[in-house]
Amino acid sequence: LPTSELSLIARIRSLARGRSAALRVGIGDDAAVLLLPPGSEALVTTDFSLEGTHFRREWHPPESVGHRCLARGLSDIAAMGGDPRAAFLSLALPAGVPQSWVDGFLRGLLRLASRYKVPLAGGDIAESPAGVCADIVVLGSVPSGQALLRSGARPGDVIYVTGQLGISAAVLHALLDGRKVSPKSKNAAPHFWPEPRIAVGRTLRGLATAAIDISDGLSTDLTHLCQESGVGALVREYSIPRGVSFQGSSLHYALHGGEDYELLFTAPAKARVPEKLAGVRITSIGEIIADAKRRLYLTDSHGQRKPLIAAGWQHLASK
Amino acid sequence: LPTSELSLIARIRSLARGRSAALRVGIGDDAAVLLLPPGSEALVTTDFSLEGTHFRREWHPPESVGHRCLARGLSDIAAMGGDPRAAFLSLALPAGVPQSWVDGFLRGLLRLASRYKVPLAGGDIAESPAGVCADIVVLGSVPSGQALLRSGARPGDVIYVTGQLGISAAVLHALLDGRKVSPKSKNAAPHFWPEPRIAVGRTLRGLATAAIDISDGLSTDLTHLCQESGVGALVREYSIPRGVSFQGSSLHYALHGGEDYELLFTAPAKARVPEKLAGVRITSIGEIIADAKRRLYLTDSHGQRKPLIAAGWQHLASK
Repeated sequence: LPTSELSLIARIRSLARGRSAALRVGIGDDAAVLLLPPGSEALVTTDFSLEGTHFRREWHPPESVGHRCLARGLSDIAAMGGDPRAAFLSLALPAGVPQSWVDGFLRGLLRLASRYKVPLAGGDIAESPAGVCADIVVLGSVPSGQALLRSGARPGDVIYVTGQLGISAAVLHALLDGRKVSPKSKNAAPHFWPEPRIAVGRTLRGLATAAIDISDGLSTDLTHLCQESGVGALVREYSIPRGVSFQGSSLHYALHGGEDYELLFTAPAKARVPEKLAGVRITSIGEIIADAKRRLYLTDSHGQRKPLIAAGWQHLASK
Repeated sequence: LPTSELSLIARIRSLARGRSAALRVGIGDDAAVLLLPPGSEALVTTDFSLEGTHFRREWHPPESVGHRCLARGLSDIAAMGGDPRAAFLSLALPAGVPQSWVDGFLRGLLRLASRYKVPLAGGDIAESPAGVCADIVVLGSVPSGQALLRSGARPGDVIYVTGQLGISAAVLHALLDGRKVSPKSKNAAPHFWPEPRIAVGRTLRGLATAAIDISDGLSTDLTHLCQESGVGALVREYSIPRGVSFQGSSLHYALHGGEDYELLFTAPAKARVPEKLAGVRITSIGEIIADAKRRLYLTDSHGQRKPLIAAGWQHLASK
């Protein structure tokens, strides 16, 4: 490795001092060594954060890019009902990225990691031919047999979502339209500083029949869930909790906008699902139906039923 | 995700049917779910394979790129004395990479995965702005407390290496010099089709005091081991098993050439280390010495001792 990469590894190592009971050996060996709780299964998820596709350096401060990078992985663990145990960062940097940018990126990532007590336990560093390329891996654990899968939804189950939908996409489209949005604005926080729903996911063990995180948009992620469960779904348009904090948020963004990182889950109609879980509002938005073709429908405010087509997030590249 | 990426995911999923006892849920959920053996610790390693840095499409057939990509991760698990349990592939492709290239890459990767019974259990797909960018993650396991660390070498320990060193670098330099090397040539196999030393690593549990894989070159990787163990080392030049199968192989490549993926390990002088482990030749090349400055020395054939400076692999970018 070139000297600059070795010094970056040393810097990450000194920053990533966070220890945990699970982590036996972290950065500095051929692999990390972790002890998961007895009676648990391991969860593993990997997610790219690519410059130009998932973020732009002129829009997103480096701290936000680092935060969002890790939030993508933590959100997947939340959607499995798991506890995150360690994160691993593979980072390819093009020549000419300032050290201050890399430091800001690591600061944002490690601040979120520290809030969830997730040590940065390893990764890789390389030079990228063009654009920052980060791949985040999160290792989690869940009591054996209790992982929330996409495949467990059954006809008659009620469909729920956490929080509000569409704000992240509304902010992104404002940025695409050339409007200025301050990363410090509280209204834009779901875009710049999304909150993975770890605590909610944990409470859903034994309650939810299926779960997925809304990273690609409600229509797309509900389609994934229905595909895996072999069912259809009926969504009530007027029940969808639209984010209204950011101007321009709309039903379209709530239905199809990605990167909300809220959870979508199903539970039997008889189950008692509270209005709030771990402090986050829970909203019933529809129900699972038997449909061999696994179709989704939207009921509008006039009671009209129309097909709901997956038209979710395609990141920056799609516009 | 664009349609092309969805169809790629479907293709990977259909190819990656390999199941294992460990894998409860593979591709198609928010995270993979794996059950590791009771009484074991988890091992996690991540490694980039970047076009231009780790391979070139004009030199390396796609099957070799896929094989080498996974071999990097498996070799790290071998160096910990672990058993690989599952692999995860994050793959960013530039527009215009032919589908046949991607299929060849997956074929090479999955062929190696199948030989080691490692299911491809997840990953991510994205579009890259330039160059193929693959990040491989391997999850392994090792009986608790038995992982081979870099930090366990003690003065008086004997230093061993597996197999032969330097062939991979010799082939690479031939390619850099514009010479043709057939990927089918048996003599060039250590470069195009490196064999991770999983079986050897397993037999080293309880025998070796420290271990590392030789991915960056003997001089660099022995430096890593000495740094972590807080010791120095003495290497006998004439004992190093130089690969002679490929023309142009030399002491320089054996000392400093990377990507051999052999194991470097230490064991107490009293330990009985066989001449072969799991069918692979084992060679004693020197000994660990007490040195607060953690220096490495090379003894040449005239008995002269000179400093051995880490001058290992810097991949393609360094030439």
